[in-house]
Amino acid sequence: MSGFFDTHKATLDQALEAARSRDYWSPYPEIASGKIYGETAKEDGAKAFKSALGKAFELNGHPADGGTVGSEQSPYGLELGIKYPKASPALLLEASRSAATDWAKASVEDRVGVCLEILDRLNKRSFEMANAVSHTTGQAFMMAFQAGGPHAQDRGLEAVTYAYAEMSRTPASAVWTKPQGKHDPLVLEKRFRVIPRGVALVIGCATFPTWNSYPGLFASLATGNTVIVKPHPGAVLPLAITVSIGRAVLAEAGFDPNVLLLAADEPGSEITKELVADPAVRIIDFTGSNAFGDWVRENAGRDTQVYTEEAGVNSIVVASTDNFRGMCSNIAFSLSLYSGQMCTAPQNIYVPEGGIDTDEGHKDFDAVAEGIKVSVDKLLGDPDRAAGVCGAIASDATLERVEAAAGLGTVLRPSASLENLADARTATPLILKVRDSEGDAHHQERFGPISFIIAVSDAEEGIARAAALASEKGAITASVYATDDATLDRAADAFADAGVSLSCNLTGGVFVNQSAAFSDYHVTGANPAGNAALTDAAFVANRFRIAATRRHKAA
Amino acid sequence: MSGFFDTHKATLDQALEAARSRDYWSPYPEIASGKIYGETAKEDGAKAFKSALGKAFELNGHPADGGTVGSEQSPYGLELGIKYPKASPALLLEASRSAATDWAKASVEDRVGVCLEILDRLNKRSFEMANAVSHTTGQAFMMAFQAGGPHAQDRGLEAVTYAYAEMSRTPASAVWTKPQGKHDPLVLEKRFRVIPRGVALVIGCATFPTWNSYPGLFASLATGNTVIVKPHPGAVLPLAITVSIGRAVLAEAGFDPNVLLLAADEPGSEITKELVADPAVRIIDFTGSNAFGDWVRENAGRDTQVYTEEAGVNSIVVASTDNFRGMCSNIAFSLSLYSGQMCTAPQNIYVPEGGIDTDEGHKDFDAVAEGIKVSVDKLLGDPDRAAGVCGAIASDATLERVEAAAGLGTVLRPSASLENLADARTATPLILKVRDSEGDAHHQERFGPISFIIAVSDAEEGIARAAALASEKGAITASVYATDDATLDRAADAFADAGVSLSCNLTGGVFVNQSAAFSDYHVTGANPAGNAALTDAAFVANRFRIAATRRHKAA
Repeated sequence: MSGFFDTHKATLDQALEAARSRDYWSPYPEIASGKIYGETAKEDGAKAFKSALGKAFELNGHPADGGTVGSEQSPYGLELGIKYPKASPALLLEASRSAATDWAKASVEDRVGVCLEILDRLNKRSFEMANAVSHTTGQAFMMAFQAGGPHAQDRGLEAVTYAYAEMSRTPASAVWTKPQGKHDPLVLEKRFRVIPRGVALVIGCATFPTWNSYPGLFASLATGNTVIVKPHPGAVLPLAITVSIGRAVLAEAGFDPNVLLLAADEPGSEITKELVADPAVRIIDFTGSNAFGDWVRENAGRDTQVYTEEAGVNSIVVASTDNFRGMCSNIAFSLSLYSGQMCTAPQNIYVPEGGIDTDEGHKDFDAVAEGIKVSVDKLLGDPDRAAGVCGAIASDATLERVEAAAGLGTVLRPSASLENLADARTATPLILKVRDSEGDAHHQERFGPISFIIAVSDAEEGIARAAALASEKGAITASVYATDDATLDRAADAFADAGVSLSCNLTGGVFVNQSAAFSDYHVTGANPAGNAALTDAAFVANRFRIAATRRHKAA
Repeated sequence: MSGFFDTHKATLDQALEAARSRDYWSPYPEIASGKIYGETAKEDGAKAFKSALGKAFELNGHPADGGTVGSEQSPYGLELGIKYPKASPALLLEASRSAATDWAKASVEDRVGVCLEILDRLNKRSFEMANAVSHTTGQAFMMAFQAGGPHAQDRGLEAVTYAYAEMSRTPASAVWTKPQGKHDPLVLEKRFRVIPRGVALVIGCATFPTWNSYPGLFASLATGNTVIVKPHPGAVLPLAITVSIGRAVLAEAGFDPNVLLLAADEPGSEITKELVADPAVRIIDFTGSNAFGDWVRENAGRDTQVYTEEAGVNSIVVASTDNFRGMCSNIAFSLSLYSGQMCTAPQNIYVPEGGIDTDEGHKDFDAVAEGIKVSVDKLLGDPDRAAGVCGAIASDATLERVEAAAGLGTVLRPSASLENLADARTATPLILKVRDSEGDAHHQERFGPISFIIAVSDAEEGIARAAALASEKGAITASVYATDDATLDRAADAFADAGVSLSCNLTGGVFVNQSAAFSDYHVTGANPAGNAALTDAAFVANRFRIAATRRHKAA
């Protein structure tokens, strides 16, 4: 059996400690530097990506019964032309189930070792992954490197770490000795084994194919389930690379590579629903819309555990600040990063109608709004920087949404395409001002670079409205600016009640969009934006069960 | 604030260690002795029980909007005549929600302290509880004392212990320091708070009102949820006593006693469905039938977490034994205890048609069946002992089921009433023999003192059939007798695959029906007999979420 567990034990131990302390920690460097990843890493990664284009993707003898499938197109304009094995749900489920027995019976250490080795190999191919993520999602290269590579690997490792912690809480065996007064005690020998739920399905999204999929993928894999990865048809390559690495490691460790399968498909002939509805699927990790999330919940089998990250409306409440410029540029970056296509990006900014106190004196509502707008303009004033911050738009639907949204309020800043990315689908932030009489278009998620600066009577009302919206429609992040502790405390209570984590007075190099593995829980699971958190014990503990045997212990 | 946590901290520490080691441990003595519980404890308990009869039950100002309700009748013939506050679901939910804020904001230690104090006071009233449990469920007094008192308290403590372990895994605060090369590090101060899901509903059963309810009740309470206890209309008193003690402790600790409420009702006008379907209810712990379990799952709110223990068919497979007498008397006790009305009681006994090897030589199928029958006769030969083992039958439906079951096979041992309990509803074990041509009446749960000794071609077939039935219909326990490790190992694999824990070669003072807190997981959650285990991390971790705040740390 493989020595992967021993190889990575020190990393796992550090990860267990990081999850407890919740300080910053990562074994996967986020700096895309040749000094760390090897002098030729960048070129090698680009070469590997290019060599995959226009041909059939090699997936270690992956089952297929329909030839090949694939129609990815880069938001930067490149036709990818990659073809993946096309397998029917029936074939995938059959292959998954026949790979299950050995994987279920493997020791916790062997399975966790395989997961850690996969993550390590993924890390080494982070430059290739950056190209794959960038050319499927539209993320700018640096972001694709970080979010698609090391940060996704961090989240995968976090899931493996929690899974290991939960599985190793119960000893493999125990002796139970019950005193019987003057008589001999009753003595039983007990053995406990981790048993998986069955086949796990991971449904990826179009914008963060690795970051959002790795937690479920690795949590299910570590706990002994076989895994079918269903990528978004527009972002298959990053998960195909992942599955390819996973299958290679599984085979090296002596397991059937079909423990990990890819369910590739194309728009118009998706196989997601058929997989979701099959009762053999016992775990589903889903990232996507509330509407499809509802469908998944309603159509998944009776015994299927469903973990979701869905949509929400994230808010910022501006009450006061001692760093007006820092606040405006921090908000501007949050609105611009990946053109607002992050589930953590703020959409609604609540500002008191009467204005706020700042280090630059009192600023009225329009002045606050103008400060944010000017900061966005400044950030995106340099075309190169704008391309590096905004990247491209993942789907036509988002572009159409931006165009349609211009009528939903008073346009403070119009959206525009990026001059340096002529071949790409791009859109800079559209910012709208909304006053009471101007409707409630901001009461639902408008995914993409669309934000609303909303006048409220005071900060209290802003907190109340943002928190109520989070309770009703979901929210993954919330942010507040206030110079007084009383407002911060009230906001902390209100957003905790609404099940949202809160960032306070971010003015520097940390942004409300960012969520750090081992420290920040991503999504609380306590509002409609998702029913699970990345990563806590609840995310892993129900992916396996414990079966025991007991017998009288021989004297 | 209360010092309950400090008072019971040593118990909690021992409990945490017991959950890890899974050795025998209990702080609540199971011996109903005056030396332990006080010389007058038995009389005091009987007196307290009697004084509750025929009047309104005092529940510390419990909300009511419909007068009183209650129609419990002892299976031993006694009319209880106890009246409980009658509250509509709307009133209960309103009271529960308005008690929620302070309870949610209390510290983990304060909540856990309250739970530990409730358990301690419950323990001191174990004799009173024994009377209450016996006269609602029909359990014999000694069993009612143990299962309704200390063993139930153990399970409650176990749930509190797991809840505490999970809640305290995340620190209350952390400092996150991310290096920035030559620049100053990014430093954030983070605070984490446990937030509850909402109102928790605990639906009790008629046979083990405390044992089956305490895990969910205490797990939800400890994690900050308010709890509405919905007892079975036939077994209200044990949970009314529990709620009464809980409300007193809550009030002493400065909380609204409505954190814990009783939803008493009567047959024919049950309020369970209305409570289940209310979206304010976010956690449901249900013990009962598969049919109602399905209803609960289908009608509970979208965001409601449902934990169930439902029905199943428990099996024994007899392959060989080196202690034929021990085996037969162990099985006989398991069939007779509380007249088979335990969710853990065996129903199907698979015996090779060609017989088995034993320490008394080869025994053919009929001889094995006869051995079990004779052991039951012997066990119940003494009328006093029979009454102490079998107790009474909780419901008319069970008695009718026993009568109807006599036609489902060849009667090996007829059921009879207990001569020493003339006023009670009683029935000794009905044992049927079934050969292949005799149908599949044993393929479903026949709750009560009904068992089938089933001829199979060999032990392998017995294991396969028992395991398949467990997968399909659910099972909470399984038992195997075999003198060779190969058979035991095969049985361990087969029942683990079917999600059932397995007892091997029980011939002494441990019975397959018994499940010890802190050591045996009760139910695996991996087959239709239930979706949760008592108690593992999965049972508690999803009853709360974590909400965080983060801000730049002042230098």
